[in-house]
Amino acid sequence: MTPPSPPPRDALFGAPYVGHLPAGPRHAITDVPGVYVGHVTLAQGPVQTGVTVVCPTPADAGGTTASASADAAAPDAGWDPFRAKIPAATAVINGFGKSVGLMQIDELGVLEAPVALTNTFSVSHVVLGQLRAAVVANPEVGRDGPSLNPTVLECNDGYLNDMQAFAVSEAHYAQALANASRDVAQGAVGAGRGMSSFGLKGGIGSASRVVETAGATFTVGVLVLSNFGRPSQLTITGRHVGPVLDARLAEPALSAAPERGSIIMLVATDAPLDARQLRRVATRTGVGLARTGSVYGHGSGDVALAFTTSYTVPHDATGRIAPPALVPDPLLDPIFQATADATEQAILHALFAAESVLGRDAHVRRALADVLPDWASL
Amino acid sequence: MTPPSPPPRDALFGAPYVGHLPAGPRHAITDVPGVYVGHVTLAQGPVQTGVTVVCPTPADAGGTTASASADAAAPDAGWDPFRAKIPAATAVINGFGKSVGLMQIDELGVLEAPVALTNTFSVSHVVLGQLRAAVVANPEVGRDGPSLNPTVLECNDGYLNDMQAFAVSEAHYAQALANASRDVAQGAVGAGRGMSSFGLKGGIGSASRVVETAGATFTVGVLVLSNFGRPSQLTITGRHVGPVLDARLAEPALSAAPERGSIIMLVATDAPLDARQLRRVATRTGVGLARTGSVYGHGSGDVALAFTTSYTVPHDATGRIAPPALVPDPLLDPIFQATADATEQAILHALFAAESVLGRDAHVRRALADVLPDWASL
Amino acid sequence: MTPPSPPPRDALFGAPYVGHLPAGPRHAITDVPGVYVGHVTLAQGPVQTGVTVVCPTPADAGGTTASASADAAAPDAGWDPFRAKIPAATAVINGFGKSVGLMQIDELGVLEAPVALTNTFSVSHVVLGQLRAAVVANPEVGRDGPSLNPTVLECNDGYLNDMQAFAVSEAHYAQALANASRDVAQGAVGAGRGMSSFGLKGGIGSASRVVETAGATFTVGVLVLSNFGRPSQLTITGRHVGPVLDARLAEPALSAAPERGSIIMLVATDAPLDARQLRRVATRTGVGLARTGSVYGHGSGDVALAFTTSYTVPHDATGRIAPPALVPDPLLDPIFQATADATEQAILHALFAAESVLGRDAHVRRALADVLPDWASL
Amino acid sequence: MTPPSPPPRDALFGAPYVGHLPAGPRHAITDVPGVYVGHVTLAQGPVQTGVTVVCPTPADAGGTTASASADAAAPDAGWDPFRAKIPAATAVINGFGKSVGLMQIDELGVLEAPVALTNTFSVSHVVLGQLRAAVVANPEVGRDGPSLNPTVLECNDGYLNDMQAFAVSEAHYAQALANASRDVAQGAVGAGRGMSSFGLKGGIGSASRVVETAGATFTVGVLVLSNFGRPSQLTITGRHVGPVLDARLAEPALSAAPERGSIIMLVATDAPLDARQLRRVATRTGVGLARTGSVYGHGSGDVALAFTTSYTVPHDATGRIAPPALVPDPLLDPIFQATADATEQAILHALFAAESVLGRDAHVRRALADVLPDWASL
Repeated sequence: MTPPSPPPRDALFGAPYVGHLPAGPRHAITDVPGVYVGHVTLAQGPVQTGVTVVCPTPADAGGTTASASADAAAPDAGWDPFRAKIPAATAVINGFGKSVGLMQIDELGVLEAPVALTNTFSVSHVVLGQLRAAVVANPEVGRDGPSLNPTVLECNDGYLNDMQAFAVSEAHYAQALANASRDVAQGAVGAGRGMSSFGLKGGIGSASRVVETAGATFTVGVLVLSNFGRPSQLTITGRHVGPVLDARLAEPALSAAPERGSIIMLVATDAPLDARQLRRVATRTGVGLARTGSVYGHGSGDVALAFTTSYTVPHDATGRIAPPALVPDPLLDPIFQATADATEQAILHALFAAESVLGRDAHVRRALADVLPDWASL
Repeated sequence: MTPPSPPPRDALFGAPYVGHLPAGPRHAITDVPGVYVGHVTLAQGPVQTGVTVVCPTPADAGGTTASASADAAAPDAGWDPFRAKIPAATAVINGFGKSVGLMQIDELGVLEAPVALTNTFSVSHVVLGQLRAAVVANPEVGRDGPSLNPTVLECNDGYLNDMQAFAVSEAHYAQALANASRDVAQGAVGAGRGMSSFGLKGGIGSASRVVETAGATFTVGVLVLSNFGRPSQLTITGRHVGPVLDARLAEPALSAAPERGSIIMLVATDAPLDARQLRRVATRTGVGLARTGSVYGHGSGDVALAFTTSYTVPHDATGRIAPPALVPDPLLDPIFQATADATEQAILHALFAAESVLGRDAHVRRALADVLPDWASL
Repeated sequence: MTPPSPPPRDALFGAPYVGHLPAGPRHAITDVPGVYVGHVTLAQGPVQTGVTVVCPTPADAGGTTASASADAAAPDAGWDPFRAKIPAATAVINGFGKSVGLMQIDELGVLEAPVALTNTFSVSHVVLGQLRAAVVANPEVGRDGPSLNPTVLECNDGYLNDMQAFAVSEAHYAQALANASRDVAQGAVGAGRGMSSFGLKGGIGSASRVVETAGATFTVGVLVLSNFGRPSQLTITGRHVGPVLDARLAEPALSAAPERGSIIMLVATDAPLDARQLRRVATRTGVGLARTGSVYGHGSGDVALAFTTSYTVPHDATGRIAPPALVPDPLLDPIFQATADATEQAILHALFAAESVLGRDAHVRRALADVLPDWASL
Repeated sequence: MTPPSPPPRDALFGAPYVGHLPAGPRHAITDVPGVYVGHVTLAQGPVQTGVTVVCPTPADAGGTTASASADAAAPDAGWDPFRAKIPAATAVINGFGKSVGLMQIDELGVLEAPVALTNTFSVSHVVLGQLRAAVVANPEVGRDGPSLNPTVLECNDGYLNDMQAFAVSEAHYAQALANASRDVAQGAVGAGRGMSSFGLKGGIGSASRVVETAGATFTVGVLVLSNFGRPSQLTITGRHVGPVLDARLAEPALSAAPERGSIIMLVATDAPLDARQLRRVATRTGVGLARTGSVYGHGSGDVALAFTTSYTVPHDATGRIAPPALVPDPLLDPIFQATADATEQAILHALFAAESVLGRDAHVRRALADVLPDWASL
């Protein structure tokens, strides 16, 4: 059960390392067996946006961390999430958002499509992409069978991206899915292309932590679409650098503006948990978010979704179905700690990985690396 | 405060009258001052679907029922729901559904767009229609201001309608809104065109009740998109006619099929209530639903949304804003009773008003009037 | 798996039989293997109250209905609910109530004490009785281990009972538990002694239904503490007899009074379900409640709790724990139907079983049998 | 509207100051007009516990901070919280707890009794104290009127205090209320006497922040009953001192023990908000809690309750009732920031104010000041 080599405790992109738990080998949500991530990035003039897909597939998890042999470039083409559903749950920390799919996940405790991320105005096109993919795989969907529950979460990238251009098409969803692999590009990519955080360039960030509990080793991976935070709030591993950032940005309008961002936080694990427990896990993303300076601002849609790749729930069942042996609640604390730490780390990765982006109407978001290269000595 | 003439206590379409409270003059949700309803119906071969829009506008309500002078044919063109938001709340009775917009309504307690209804696969197109309408009215939406919260609720009409044809377009939303008036066509119209209930033709139903409480007279109106129920469950004002219905339909497949419907229940009132109270009102739709025979089946997305036209919440505010004097909670019981009764009545109206419809693949749903003309003597 | 003899389809106490599903042999929640019920009734002058305990013990359920051999008079003395917890969930239909224990059940999905019922002012004494019992069984409770989550639900019997006398003591809890058996006295007994419904005598009612699903036979049992409803609302299996009842009671004060009751609805089953599914089951009690005439009145604390006896969750666990094979969600509809029907039936049993009671200050609640002997012909 | 003298920005007890918002003159929840706090401390051998009461009374708030003239020693004897209820809401961050009263607050949005804090096993006695006080003030409570909703929140102080001794009596509630004043003793007092945090002595902490929004100045006050946290987690204003603390405590059993604490976080404000908004405020306590190192551990009942003293809701109402002009949601961010900062500050105050306590069985919790006097240089 022990990982073959010591897992890393140094973060990517020059970001500081959060906490004391080790990371998985990729420092990313794809350290969780069965998870793949794909992006489509649209970056042309006033269009600075994209689609990111997090594709959970069932893993023979059972307490092992991702090994090199699981490094297949693409998710298993033979798996159909509609027929073999993924246990999942959500936590709405601040509900100022337009994500779709959460109500049914709350009721039934499963995902039945990959989780897609995009900008607020493009949710519909990505939903349509999910529906078309489901119909291809299962022609009875919406006809003689129930319809699919599309799962598309979003943030508003309207400062850099001209959302009114509706640049994302249905085909971009399929393309992002086709791009899915175990390597996770971070920063100003995919759905993160146009996102802002703390007045800086935000975007996609990911991280992982490895924990031991209930007699086994499990991985917790997080991927965020980071688009929240006012400059004065930024806190990096406990260091409140926001006031310096605010001064350096020297944009009075920005300093005075209300929070109008959002963050989507996806948590994956190979720990066998049921939906009630996954809701508890999803709630702990709020800890990592708070540590970076957020107060869950009024205008920020702060939404989390957690899932496990350790088992699936069949679409059709005529008899009873046995879940695997689950981690008992009293042994969840290491998973909670990993969720909090990986969420904070993923947000930092998004900031440290992002490059500066010039978007619509000469709007610019600069990279943290440009504005605060000396953050560690502030 | 008393309505000028005795309100009716006999229902439409040959349906029995529910309860002892009087109805408003239109027997419909549009008896609530400020509420308009518009349909677009698509009925050609395998396409049997549509869009229905319930448009709440602010009324000088304050305890009056709709008068003839308020019978304007269309909603006030000068009102913008994004800038003057409508207090609202939801109740998810069974969350097997794909409606969008509920999360933000729960958080902020307001609607900022008319409420649209359509089939499950067409939600995205209607969302896009709402977004485009909002951008026209407020060009800063999604650019220098926050984005709109689209509010589109749905049921699966896939038995009669070929949802995979994606027949509803963005333009149909605008058209339904343009069709909005105080007259409410019921039955197999608008979003209800392809819906089924209890193995019969379902669809759009509406009803209203007038109550006195807190020293004033208020109207409660309900509009349902009725698509739920197995034949054996049907109960008409307490009379359990389901077994006879089941025998007459004589469709073993139908009798054996699991619940795979849904119902959307919209409640409007001119009673001044806050969002917490409106959530309590929305919850009472479950009473009316249960009386018709539903047990909130696993596969039925049973979702309610309640709003008041008695005041609005400004989009921009620099200072404090005063709600009107509210009905206190201990005086809500008449409104709860009206909600339960009008919901049951609206479901019956949908069944009694609907005509038989022939849809895709020679699928037929017959009208209750055809199958159970003798329901009252069973 | 088939019950040895045809289960009954006629109700107790002269009440009509609800629906088409068969009942278990006892027509009571104790038809669910492992469930025991005990009462203490206090009936002296102005003190008309009591305690009822529903004691769920783990059963070797797996799809069998209660057999004669399981008719032991008392619950297994060897079982400790703190160490082997019972999966459970709640549904708050209207939260005007003072029940304790619900928050932790929602979070952790388990009961760790028998469920006790009493009057509103006596909750604290029964809680203390539960704590003392837990400390005796587990001396480390509240010392070197976590404390117990007491689970005591209540209704306000203040019309008949002088709640300010605080007549229930800690010892009454232990006594009710000692009285627990498979026979369930119904009506004006135990916690139901002083309760009122629809202006009539209410109290304890119970019922059961047997269903087949997922390839097995399961029992759903309900026990209610019925204390809700205004006379004009009473509906008996679809027959709205409330107006006649209102006229016969001829108590203008009663007719005009707002709802000030409450109902506690406990659902037991031997179907293997997890906590998320049990929450769905608990929600369906609202269907049975609505059918009797309730509109979930403002002042009525309408609270449901569902549990399964099919497995337990250990207090201490060092490794993973396997739940049994569960009934999949798409096969829950028979259990939902049984829950709705048994809830309605249990409420009717409470009304039909209750005798008239004279309480404090010459307050009287008459039995339905006295006031509406001719209900079936109204 | 401006406070007469610059409010303080230095914290009490040698604790560091959190954030950039100014505090009120008392650095305590009683900076909110109308709020009083009283303690009863029981500290004799194995009994180390108590009761704390936070008494909200209606203030002529309207945007003023507490002035010297409001420094009356005791709450207004003429105010009855049952008849003039206090708008309130809760947020359950982790529901492993036994607090009572939350369900009804969620439903109705009001407090009708002062908020009492005590140890887990003493909740019942304090509830009885609240009931008796209500009956004295309103003899119809539980007789011809509805019963009171007792509001008693708790943490488990069983490490230091012998909870099984049930040392708290009903009379202690009345005594704590009689002790209520604008001065707030902090640390190992009242309900905080036996509480532990991070392996150190915890207890009662309080703090306040003054904000300007919506054209006025408002105060946000927090009082915590702090009993959570493992030593290795402690973070003081961003400085992760937990590992040093863990080493110095050198208690392997403590380091290895799971989280078994809890924290109750009460938020008061004079900002006029409705219950939905107060729920949003209560949720932001999770930010302050997270900053101190908590990951909302499995065994920690993390519960928040927020109320406003700016208006009251009458128990009896025959007509509509007007709330005051409310702060609009888009202007809530300063209040959210104040809530997060004051919660973190209050937790630090509890730690820095607490003295070492010797409790049952020679159990000791040392003061932070003893163990980490050099925290600032670690």
